[in-house]
Amino acid sequence: MELQEALARLSELQRKQYAYNAASSALFLDSVTVAPRDTAEGRGVALGILAGEQHKLFANEEVGKLLDFLAERKEELPLSQRRQAEELKRSYDQLRRIPAEEYMAYTMLTNEASDVWHRAKERSDFSLFQPVLEKLVAFNQKFAGYYDSTKAPYDALLNEYERGTDMAYLDKFFAALRERIVPVIRAIGEKEQPDDSFLHQCYPIEGQKKLSDYLMEVMGLDRAHCGIGETEHPFTLDFNNKDVRITTNYDEHNLSFSMYSVIHEGGHARHALGVSDELQYTCLTGASMGVCESQSRFYENYIGRSLPFVEAVFPKLRELFPEQLKNVTAEQFYRAVNKAQPSLIRTEADELTYPLHIMVRYEIEKQLIGGTLAVKDVPETWNRLYKEYLGVDVPDDRRGCLQDSHWSGGSFGYFPSYALGSAYGAQMLRNMEADMDVWGSVGRGDLSGVTAWLREKVQRYGGLLEPADLVENACGAFDQSVYADYLVEKYSALYGL
Amino acid sequence: MELQEALARLSELQRKQYAYNAASSALFLDSVTVAPRDTAEGRGVALGILAGEQHKLFANEEVGKLLDFLAERKEELPLSQRRQAEELKRSYDQLRRIPAEEYMAYTMLTNEASDVWHRAKERSDFSLFQPVLEKLVAFNQKFAGYYDSTKAPYDALLNEYERGTDMAYLDKFFAALRERIVPVIRAIGEKEQPDDSFLHQCYPIEGQKKLSDYLMEVMGLDRAHCGIGETEHPFTLDFNNKDVRITTNYDEHNLSFSMYSVIHEGGHARHALGVSDELQYTCLTGASMGVCESQSRFYENYIGRSLPFVEAVFPKLRELFPEQLKNVTAEQFYRAVNKAQPSLIRTEADELTYPLHIMVRYEIEKQLIGGTLAVKDVPETWNRLYKEYLGVDVPDDRRGCLQDSHWSGGSFGYFPSYALGSAYGAQMLRNMEADMDVWGSVGRGDLSGVTAWLREKVQRYGGLLEPADLVENACGAFDQSVYADYLVEKYSALYGL
Repeated sequence: MELQEALARLSELQRKQYAYNAASSALFLDSVTVAPRDTAEGRGVALGILAGEQHKLFANEEVGKLLDFLAERKEELPLSQRRQAEELKRSYDQLRRIPAEEYMAYTMLTNEASDVWHRAKERSDFSLFQPVLEKLVAFNQKFAGYYDSTKAPYDALLNEYERGTDMAYLDKFFAALRERIVPVIRAIGEKEQPDDSFLHQCYPIEGQKKLSDYLMEVMGLDRAHCGIGETEHPFTLDFNNKDVRITTNYDEHNLSFSMYSVIHEGGHARHALGVSDELQYTCLTGASMGVCESQSRFYENYIGRSLPFVEAVFPKLRELFPEQLKNVTAEQFYRAVNKAQPSLIRTEADELTYPLHIMVRYEIEKQLIGGTLAVKDVPETWNRLYKEYLGVDVPDDRRGCLQDSHWSGGSFGYFPSYALGSAYGAQMLRNMEADMDVWGSVGRGDLSGVTAWLREKVQRYGGLLEPADLVENACGAFDQSVYADYLVEKYSALYGL
Repeated sequence: MELQEALARLSELQRKQYAYNAASSALFLDSVTVAPRDTAEGRGVALGILAGEQHKLFANEEVGKLLDFLAERKEELPLSQRRQAEELKRSYDQLRRIPAEEYMAYTMLTNEASDVWHRAKERSDFSLFQPVLEKLVAFNQKFAGYYDSTKAPYDALLNEYERGTDMAYLDKFFAALRERIVPVIRAIGEKEQPDDSFLHQCYPIEGQKKLSDYLMEVMGLDRAHCGIGETEHPFTLDFNNKDVRITTNYDEHNLSFSMYSVIHEGGHARHALGVSDELQYTCLTGASMGVCESQSRFYENYIGRSLPFVEAVFPKLRELFPEQLKNVTAEQFYRAVNKAQPSLIRTEADELTYPLHIMVRYEIEKQLIGGTLAVKDVPETWNRLYKEYLGVDVPDDRRGCLQDSHWSGGSFGYFPSYALGSAYGAQMLRNMEADMDVWGSVGRGDLSGVTAWLREKVQRYGGLLEPADLVENACGAFDQSVYADYLVEKYSALYGL
């Protein structure tokens, strides 16, 4: 085989993978937006077959030989192709260990599970979801062995979302974080809370939709390349760097939920749109989950929940909701969207208590995948940990262990990425502040400098750099105390501690 | 090869085809509903690759051997599998003649063309669409040769949509029809027209959406299996018999457009939902285009534009639009939605002048594919034929030759199916009237009997019967004069001729 021919085949393989991914993304997007309710069966048949075909395309000996050939010649390859070959080899070795029938069955299961989870959540009835969750956990325990049989199963899964991360690392990370933030949360408990009742007046959906359009404009999201839709659980889906979709969920009596979900998903969208053209239709369009979440949470929290940003967008808020906000100042709004108070719903949590929501999920996943917690006991454990970590009583499963879609999608080990992403983001912010006048431009509603910095340091690379290298590129040596410092400082100032 | 094994492979092959079709349908549906504007490129890459994979899956020698084997043993096969093998063999022989590169290039072209057509129509500028249309025509001329090189190219294309149909047949069909309806149209020209201005008051979209919901309910379309969306050009897409989508387009100043488009597409949906479960995930889920249009136009015209139906739904119309319809009776509404007047837009045309719109397109396609008309001359010819057949002046391309999406989707030879479908439908109605009290139940707003009849005689078969056999099953020996009789009688009564 000639090197040029091998590289052409490498490219063709990845373009085909892109096509299969686009196909299942379109089917998925349809299923969570407009598809009629009882249509999961036929879609499951299609998704299962496409996954089987994609598996066959990739997990065959020809591909193995190609990747081995490229591995031998890796010194001669340009960076991008070298990394493509490396990443594909890694996936290949993994996937070869998963039998095609299991892979197809799993794809069909996650399609079904999403449907079942929706119903279970709607009815707040965990018992509906339990049998499916049992299957999902069993599959993931098995897959963990295929990924890396030398690791404990949950370590193998964690490594998939954030390479190099394991329970030993996260146990320490979370313990150190908890040590810094729990005293702050306690001290705040003694203080008077800001009034945020004005956020829960009636905010008609039409106005909230206009706000979404405005926020996307402020974030520089070109609507010819980035759409917005509505789903139960907000998410971002990128077909490629010219075609990204975000979704949100409007609650007439909760202005900040959709507002900050749009900024969060908009951050993911900025990331996807910022990936270099050269990486399109390759396996290197995405970074690690931690890096991905660093971008979404950067826009959502470090920028979106800052006083300068709130001051910049407040005139528009007042224009859209003159009655509701007539007696509210930008600073009151800022305090309200930063109210720190232990609560039930992760996606509505403030920055300070947010990591505790993650820790609950981390503990449960650790035990579920480790086999020390039975699926049927998830609700009880969930409720107990919420009481223990956050001091709140969970009234029902809908607001408890059924609130997130991740498990129904087959993701176990994803949640810690949110906390890691926040920690990366805090360090990026500190570096950004050293490089430019962040708050001057944000205060003028101009996010172009922030985006340019992130694009330069993070976004354009996609998965071109190894996850740890990418973090180092943007953060320098990772130091989790920057994140804790940020939280302690911000909330001490907010509450006058 | 054992027969059982061959049948299992036959089934597997078709399930895979179903999966690829579902994938491209989902990508297409997205593209015409929610996809951001400038995203065609990446989707085109995906669609092209998927089409290439699907082509490879099917057009290979293993499949050829399988189909030859089944052809030899066809006497032993149950009807359904025999027909599957027959139809697949037919497609196979055709497809094998289309080189894979041409097939992929064509798929990418139609994806691009849809985008270009939208823009050209928006700007009413044919010159934007012309280069793409030239390519589409050239591809279709070439493909016609692959389909059947013994036929004239347009005959080969016509045969794809309605087997057995050719120019000789259609020339006669249209001539005979014209001879019967043109005198009626002329006579109506001398008569006073009913007042239909009330249809063009302001009908808020929200109300029209409620009307769509109501009409779908009247048609017995279960919303758990049939969705409705909005697109430039209304259409129906069926993933399978449990998952069908219709679309419509709301015009605030035209109540009947969306109303009858919903009934038309709802008719297609009824057809797709009525196909037997046994035929799911096979190549036999769809009938010929003429039969398909017979179903949509049956609900739209024979039922939807009948006086009993209008009387049945009128109370709901009055409830939704009390102000707009306060001085209108059901009979006035009936007369207004049956106003026969030569006009510009096919999809808004009345039943009587509608076939003339088809004849214009038929003439142009015949000459385009025959090579006697250059693409650049389409607008001029279109405008001349509209003047000659319908007596109307076409003011711009948007309301002229750019009005339909068919050509941009690569369909040449489809339009005559609308007229044939209407003719089949007229005969079905006559037979239905002989079997049951059609108008008694329709007048009560009960369409279940009508649907049961059509399901029994037409819908459940999908493509199980040969197109001509299916028509005979529902119509008896085809007699086009039944259609002409129907039009002449209906409009003579309406206008007192």
